[in-house]
Amino acid sequence: MIKLSKFPFKTEKTAPKVSDNKSTSLLLQAGLIRQTMAGVYTYTTLWLKVLRKIENIVRKHMDNYGAYEILMPALSPKENWEKTWRWDGIDVMFHLPASWNKEYGLNSTHEEIVTPLMKEFIQSYKDLPVCVYQIQDKFRNEKRAKSGLLRWREFWMKDAYSFHLDNEEFENYYEWMKKVYMDIFNELGIWKDTYITLADGGTFTDKNSHEFQTKLEIWEDLVFKDPKTWICYNQEIAPSKVGKANVKDEILKDREDIKHSEDIIWVEALEKLLNIPKYKTSKTIFFIADEKRFIAASVRWDYEINEIKLRKVVNAKQLRMATEEEVKEKIGTKIGFAGIINLPEDVELYLDDSLENLTNFETWTNKDGYHSINVNFGKDLPLPEKFYDFKLAKEGDINPETGEKYEVFRASEVGNIFPLETKFTKPFNVTVLDENQKQKDVIMWCYGIWVSRLMWVIAEYFTKDEKINWPENIAPANYYIIVLWENNIEKAENIAKQLEEKWNEVILDDRMWKKFGFWTKIKDAELLGIPHIIVVSDKTQNMENGYEIIK
Amino acid sequence: MIKLSKFPFKTEKTAPKVSDNKSTSLLLQAGLIRQTMAGVYTYTTLWLKVLRKIENIVRKHMDNYGAYEILMPALSPKENWEKTWRWDGIDVMFHLPASWNKEYGLNSTHEEIVTPLMKEFIQSYKDLPVCVYQIQDKFRNEKRAKSGLLRWREFWMKDAYSFHLDNEEFENYYEWMKKVYMDIFNELGIWKDTYITLADGGTFTDKNSHEFQTKLEIWEDLVFKDPKTWICYNQEIAPSKVGKANVKDEILKDREDIKHSEDIIWVEALEKLLNIPKYKTSKTIFFIADEKRFIAASVRWDYEINEIKLRKVVNAKQLRMATEEEVKEKIGTKIGFAGIINLPEDVELYLDDSLENLTNFETWTNKDGYHSINVNFGKDLPLPEKFYDFKLAKEGDINPETGEKYEVFRASEVGNIFPLETKFTKPFNVTVLDENQKQKDVIMWCYGIWVSRLMWVIAEYFTKDEKINWPENIAPANYYIIVLWENNIEKAENIAKQLEEKWNEVILDDRMWKKFGFWTKIKDAELLGIPHIIVVSDKTQNMENGYEIIK
Repeated sequence: MIKLSKFPFKTEKTAPKVSDNKSTSLLLQAGLIRQTMAGVYTYTTLWLKVLRKIENIVRKHMDNYGAYEILMPALSPKENWEKTWRWDGIDVMFHLPASWNKEYGLNSTHEEIVTPLMKEFIQSYKDLPVCVYQIQDKFRNEKRAKSGLLRWREFWMKDAYSFHLDNEEFENYYEWMKKVYMDIFNELGIWKDTYITLADGGTFTDKNSHEFQTKLEIWEDLVFKDPKTWICYNQEIAPSKVGKANVKDEILKDREDIKHSEDIIWVEALEKLLNIPKYKTSKTIFFIADEKRFIAASVRWDYEINEIKLRKVVNAKQLRMATEEEVKEKIGTKIGFAGIINLPEDVELYLDDSLENLTNFETWTNKDGYHSINVNFGKDLPLPEKFYDFKLAKEGDINPETGEKYEVFRASEVGNIFPLETKFTKPFNVTVLDENQKQKDVIMWCYGIWVSRLMWVIAEYFTKDEKINWPENIAPANYYIIVLWENNIEKAENIAKQLEEKWNEVILDDRMWKKFGFWTKIKDAELLGIPHIIVVSDKTQNMENGYEIIK
Repeated sequence: MIKLSKFPFKTEKTAPKVSDNKSTSLLLQAGLIRQTMAGVYTYTTLWLKVLRKIENIVRKHMDNYGAYEILMPALSPKENWEKTWRWDGIDVMFHLPASWNKEYGLNSTHEEIVTPLMKEFIQSYKDLPVCVYQIQDKFRNEKRAKSGLLRWREFWMKDAYSFHLDNEEFENYYEWMKKVYMDIFNELGIWKDTYITLADGGTFTDKNSHEFQTKLEIWEDLVFKDPKTWICYNQEIAPSKVGKANVKDEILKDREDIKHSEDIIWVEALEKLLNIPKYKTSKTIFFIADEKRFIAASVRWDYEINEIKLRKVVNAKQLRMATEEEVKEKIGTKIGFAGIINLPEDVELYLDDSLENLTNFETWTNKDGYHSINVNFGKDLPLPEKFYDFKLAKEGDINPETGEKYEVFRASEVGNIFPLETKFTKPFNVTVLDENQKQKDVIMWCYGIWVSRLMWVIAEYFTKDEKINWPENIAPANYYIIVLWENNIEKAENIAKQLEEKWNEVILDDRMWKKFGFWTKIKDAELLGIPHIIVVSDKTQNMENGYEIIK
């Protein structure tokens, strides 16, 4: 039982303003958290109780599922990361200088630790499948930490890793694991608004990863849900078609190249200058694929290019934007004047289908100082054999596979399932002999749950009217007892003990100084979001249990 | 229930050799731990259970005592450490380079985080005393990590911090806390051999710290116990007198200065060269006190100088050995020829009482290439006003306060209590108004328990005959069920479930391949040190509960 008369972590009268989420501000006001530095928090007593409860729910389901909990360290040897080319490959990984000019990794993820560990114990195909997990502190060297909950430099995560003989064996396993995740998010009270969302699987697999995205007003990811199939896509991979198709002009005008002196950045300036409607302008960006192919990619003005989709369209292992110098050298013009006409022959041109049927449109001329208007396919440019889909999907777009208009919502990722194929088992040489004595590389998957973020997501999800309404099973306490008048303290303590015997956790508000009247106490009880509030006072002594239930 | 047929962390046939402790080798053989890098371990499933049980015992007692659990981060801002001059002052602290040329601390301790945290919540003397604690991962940039359990680069610790109005208030608190620690070590089964030991309190207080030292054959600290008072001292502060006093020669000889060409390092070479007995040689070391005083300190050949004791004797805030150049400049001789005669006047000479009554003894001459023998106080040197005690105590020494010969034993520190006075509250400006409206700096103490080390200490403590005999309450499991013959598995599973319903944890050895006979299974059960072993086989079906208890 926590007696507030002695409890150090007091609430504050008003909520401090913090950026973009209600819950962080409430958590600060309630004294549940304090920021130690940007992106790094201290958890006080009651918030730690929430962490432990969430942890235990995650643990229970993982254990029931047959995964084995372990605890890997936060430090790791550099050599492990060099084996997988990730020492310099993970931009958010902290490199820790140590004695004797050594460097250690301060782990942002644990593939490089768990793979050599499990190699020791996986000796035969009979040892597969096997899944280990941990709930542990992770670190990320974030350039900009957000004051809310998304970009942390230190946070708790549940990370699981499973090992399989082949993809077939994995398929069954995966269905189970999806079920486990659903059970976890269900027990945490957020399943109703949590969506399994397809996302990018990375460069070493054709498979998608699966994200568990909880619908919330303010967070980072955009989810595109097909209202018919219920399949959800993360914006980063959502296939898309323009909601309202381009209508061809009846008359194809003659192309005009127009010189102008000022730099033009915004489409509005362009519209004014060239006297053409916005939707008839295009934007072109240049990329280098696999450090050898020069790519021009063009979309309609109101779209952005989705590099993840584009990489797949151009069938490259690696894709990056061309530098200003590279564009100048290849196209012979400043990056600001580069468009889709007058391109050198060895530049591969890819057109997004947002440009399909566009007539009399604008592009840059690839000539310093020049725009072209009234450009037309089949006239100023060859009629393209194919249009592609590499635009960043946006609200109003259609799922090209079903023709349905997407439902789009903001969400926060609380978990994910990721195909690792043999990306880590190969460098660490994790192989087994199968039943036919044939040597096989072991297949690996990983499964994350963002435990710290879950706490914030749950807090935010259950925040209404400036109050966090915790679900009973993860609330910092179940009962808040308001005691009025000193002579009732002993009685209240006995009631608290009785409640504790029935596995309840109790906060006893026994603060008796003048300023702590009923209204102050009930305000704190509600700010802390305790599910049940009862009062013990002179008036309640003749009531059934000696107290009055007010919530 | 853990079913060994599917459990990945298998035991090994033989124990790998590791340095100096039995338990690490057994833990590796049992598959409970793996080294991720020197001084950094991964805990597999069963070892993690031990950690959690120890953690929970520590937590229970701390909570009962009225301390509030919190969770502080591993990262901290550099500014906090600069405020207390410890950014460069803690040689084992990792400095973590981050984005924007920032550096973070990777905490080896948390005073710099907890003090500003609590400053926010300590507003009045009524908020005192208050104690917060955490059980959390700590990091140390150790030059040499040991393969065993002492010098880790990453480890779990319980660290508590209490805040007080004054030392008087603290005294009561401290007696409680000592009791809590005793209760914890008692519940962990090591209290009988755990000794409260006085140790150095650091440079900012006259008080001693208190260490909880568990007597073990192989560990790092030497404890000096007075058999009469039962007071224990860490070697680093143990007051001491030579066990066998020097006997004066009847004839005081004339001093001789002897030239020799070779460098002499070992006392044996000196004995041979000068033809004098070892116990008539002395050793002198030069120190700089507070960067201004030049100190010569001399002890009998068979002692070392204890710098902690010497610092107090010379009454300095800070003490360091003089460099070769400093000695050369001050004394005019190489460091190897520096002794206690012919010292310049501004060198302060301190003599340890191991030199008392020594006659006709040897010292270096402070003249390149020369020793002096037959040196005598009152003849070649002024009769000293006082001898001091700054030798490093050793076996055979006497406690000067009681005249009792110390009992000396090796031990491993499992906990400590440390006076911090106002060392941290002053720089962070933690003050309160007392009852008389007088502003006071808050007094602070800290209390550590080395949780990871405790696991090893307990394992080592209970290891006998190549087996770890876990006490029931911290064993990786309570029951180990050996199943013989496939047809008994279901029965054994039911028995396991019944045991689990009574809060037992069960390992079910259902491995049925040929090599897993009774003797293999029982060997694993004993290697894992499970307190109860039962067998379920065809033979046991008519026994009372359907099983046979064999341990």
